[in-house]
Amino acid sequence: MTIPESAKAAVDELREHVSDLHAELVRYDLVVWTAGNVSARVPGHDLMVIKPSGVSYDDLSADRMVVCDLHGRLVEGEHSPSSDTEAHAHVYRHMPEVGGVVHTHSNYASAWAAIGEPIPCVLTAMADEFGGPIPLGPFARIGDDAIGRGIVDTLTGHRSRAVIMKNHGVFSIGPDAKAAVKAAAMCEDVAKSTFIARQMGPLVPIPQDDVDALYDRYQNVYGQQGGSK
Amino acid sequence: MTIPESAKAAVDELREHVSDLHAELVRYDLVVWTAGNVSARVPGHDLMVIKPSGVSYDDLSADRMVVCDLHGRLVEGEHSPSSDTEAHAHVYRHMPEVGGVVHTHSNYASAWAAIGEPIPCVLTAMADEFGGPIPLGPFARIGDDAIGRGIVDTLTGHRSRAVIMKNHGVFSIGPDAKAAVKAAAMCEDVAKSTFIARQMGPLVPIPQDDVDALYDRYQNVYGQQGGSK
Amino acid sequence: MTIPESAKAAVDELREHVSDLHAELVRYDLVVWTAGNVSARVPGHDLMVIKPSGVSYDDLSADRMVVCDLHGRLVEGEHSPSSDTEAHAHVYRHMPEVGGVVHTHSNYASAWAAIGEPIPCVLTAMADEFGGPIPLGPFARIGDDAIGRGIVDTLTGHRSRAVIMKNHGVFSIGPDAKAAVKAAAMCEDVAKSTFIARQMGPLVPIPQDDVDALYDRYQNVYGQQGGSK
Amino acid sequence: MTIPESAKAAVDELREHVSDLHAELVRYDLVVWTAGNVSARVPGHDLMVIKPSGVSYDDLSADRMVVCDLHGRLVEGEHSPSSDTEAHAHVYRHMPEVGGVVHTHSNYASAWAAIGEPIPCVLTAMADEFGGPIPLGPFARIGDDAIGRGIVDTLTGHRSRAVIMKNHGVFSIGPDAKAAVKAAAMCEDVAKSTFIARQMGPLVPIPQDDVDALYDRYQNVYGQQGGSK
Repeated sequence: MTIPESAKAAVDELREHVSDLHAELVRYDLVVWTAGNVSARVPGHDLMVIKPSGVSYDDLSADRMVVCDLHGRLVEGEHSPSSDTEAHAHVYRHMPEVGGVVHTHSNYASAWAAIGEPIPCVLTAMADEFGGPIPLGPFARIGDDAIGRGIVDTLTGHRSRAVIMKNHGVFSIGPDAKAAVKAAAMCEDVAKSTFIARQMGPLVPIPQDDVDALYDRYQNVYGQQGGSK
Repeated sequence: MTIPESAKAAVDELREHVSDLHAELVRYDLVVWTAGNVSARVPGHDLMVIKPSGVSYDDLSADRMVVCDLHGRLVEGEHSPSSDTEAHAHVYRHMPEVGGVVHTHSNYASAWAAIGEPIPCVLTAMADEFGGPIPLGPFARIGDDAIGRGIVDTLTGHRSRAVIMKNHGVFSIGPDAKAAVKAAAMCEDVAKSTFIARQMGPLVPIPQDDVDALYDRYQNVYGQQGGSK
Repeated sequence: MTIPESAKAAVDELREHVSDLHAELVRYDLVVWTAGNVSARVPGHDLMVIKPSGVSYDDLSADRMVVCDLHGRLVEGEHSPSSDTEAHAHVYRHMPEVGGVVHTHSNYASAWAAIGEPIPCVLTAMADEFGGPIPLGPFARIGDDAIGRGIVDTLTGHRSRAVIMKNHGVFSIGPDAKAAVKAAAMCEDVAKSTFIARQMGPLVPIPQDDVDALYDRYQNVYGQQGGSK
Repeated sequence: MTIPESAKAAVDELREHVSDLHAELVRYDLVVWTAGNVSARVPGHDLMVIKPSGVSYDDLSADRMVVCDLHGRLVEGEHSPSSDTEAHAHVYRHMPEVGGVVHTHSNYASAWAAIGEPIPCVLTAMADEFGGPIPLGPFARIGDDAIGRGIVDTLTGHRSRAVIMKNHGVFSIGPDAKAAVKAAAMCEDVAKSTFIARQMGPLVPIPQDDVDALYDRYQNVYGQQGGSK
């Protein structure tokens, strides 16, 4: 497969955008060394732009990004794609509404993964962004579509844009890559606050109707009309 | 309503000042993504300057700030005001001594909010700045004046310039916006130290007369004469 | 009192040096807002150079530093000296070997202060720098020489260059101001590691003869011959 | 001993490289003040390049690095070598496959050292990088080859590239210095996540065959073909 002429402008733009978004993973302390990645779907094409494997965030640039098809096969790029490419590809194949996927091992969220529990919803910021708890996905080995299936099975029909994969870390999704990065950052933020609270004493849950009202408002009223959130 | 001629110079100055103060929220790790905001009252007018909703801190500038009246209605600005505008406006309407309001979801303070407890006063820095415990305000949904009422009910007549709103986060106030930002930063700082201490063993309270003496001295002697603290 | 001609060069140099050292408090996350300070004795004179009260670290410069005598009285400077000046002065008066004093409310060390316990010595880095536990000093109100007396009583004849003042924070000392800043940074570092360890399980103490040997070596062999450590 | 002509180009390159790698210790919050160091073996020669003792990371440069033989004796340099030089040298003498060594007192890993426990493997990132738990090495005083022996005894034949030395801190190794720095960074990262998880509840172990499969894949498939990981 090669990149169709009609996709080239979008691919070039997404190379730049996806490369830049990795700096947000660094800024929000979501990654160490090379352990996290961002991808974006090329709208209208069975293509995605993703981080090359094992390349430092300092060394990323638009032209080092990798273009793959939605089975994770290399289409364009001088580097091998992220070792998580199959998981990203699986999500794009099975969740057509998803335009961006992010993976991190951020510390607090990964700790919830290591005890195998979802993150309960005790903060309005979490009700706003995730509409309730952040769910726990299954343990899955890397190397086939097991991780991708775990993500899709957990997030399909769920309000949450993030899943904590057992003994592993976070995958987050969004209508575009920036929204998925935001979900990854917010996931770590609430994972941290909720950890601290749980250490101190019994968590006070937010009543379900309040969670519902907060989620509804945030998804529909927050931010600039027509703008990215 | 439009901005009266006599307020224009002050509004321009506050646009710059309020925009700049958001960088302090970032510097002190009080915010993630777009989840916190600063406002300032325009002295002598029923106006406030506040952050636009959902705009990144990197993208803030004086001309992107929003001017609202003290019922939260847009007076000047190309963006929608912060979704917390009604809460800020309610505070300005009911607490005439307040010149600045700040809202954050800073992690340690939000954890105290998630267990529904005030932060006890076990550090002299807290006696200095807050004059005792940082109180807990009620749970309140966003969308009407419930949050504003919770803040005003809790802080009126209280020494503390910060309130922990249950399951939510921090609101802080001050005679000007910079003082409110300081209170937000100090609130997170003492929330963190006090969390760590509480994890280790029973907290040792500071006797009330010492708290009183420390608060009195800090409010009246600390800093440069006539300067901002 | 005025600054003697023979002290002027040293004062000018220390104004620059002490101003610069405050950036290390910021770099090592030892301070929030304006809540920490560094001073240096002017060698051979009953004078000290110290931070002005309530001035932001961003706004510090050599010419904004304040010169006081060793009773804390202003000798030269356009600003009021730090509200902790009396404590610094008391230390210089009673501990002639001390050339620098630092005060912080760093979070982990302050947490030990809030439970009123010394920091036990379970790490070689602590044996190296402090020669054993970091001791707890008494609770003392600001405003007279009570804090200074508490520091001097606790650290006189003690190996440790840092003391945790109950319900308050850290004071550290050194032969010069840089060494005192180092002690403040190392104090927070070991306070953090020791907190984390204590949360996980019983701490394993280092045998006393090992502590003694480590301290002896670090004080006499580490670093460059004749250089600052 | 002097540097043979045939080694001079490699030494010059490693002086630059080792100096630069210390900035990664700072970036990943692995060190405070001067308390950590990196060294590299000069390939094909009984020489190593290491940090000078007690010199600030800000002041490091290629020409300030120190060249020693593999018994830790100074070969070239104006400064004394790191006080940990004997430990590094011992590792190079006894582990010919090691090209780089790193030492830190990073907080979370040092906390595991202070309770005297290995870090259990409950995260896939740890299985990937370390192939199982990070082992605990013995307590050893600095000053002879005891630390070096402890490292070599613990890591020989072990998958892990890092060891937690009891009551002390981390030593990590790698085929080159960059890989050893990566191991030090990943060690602190998993030490932190695992601490947080352990605070919340029982850790969920990863089955051994999954650990084995993850380690095998990461060591052989991850990253760019032929490139540094």
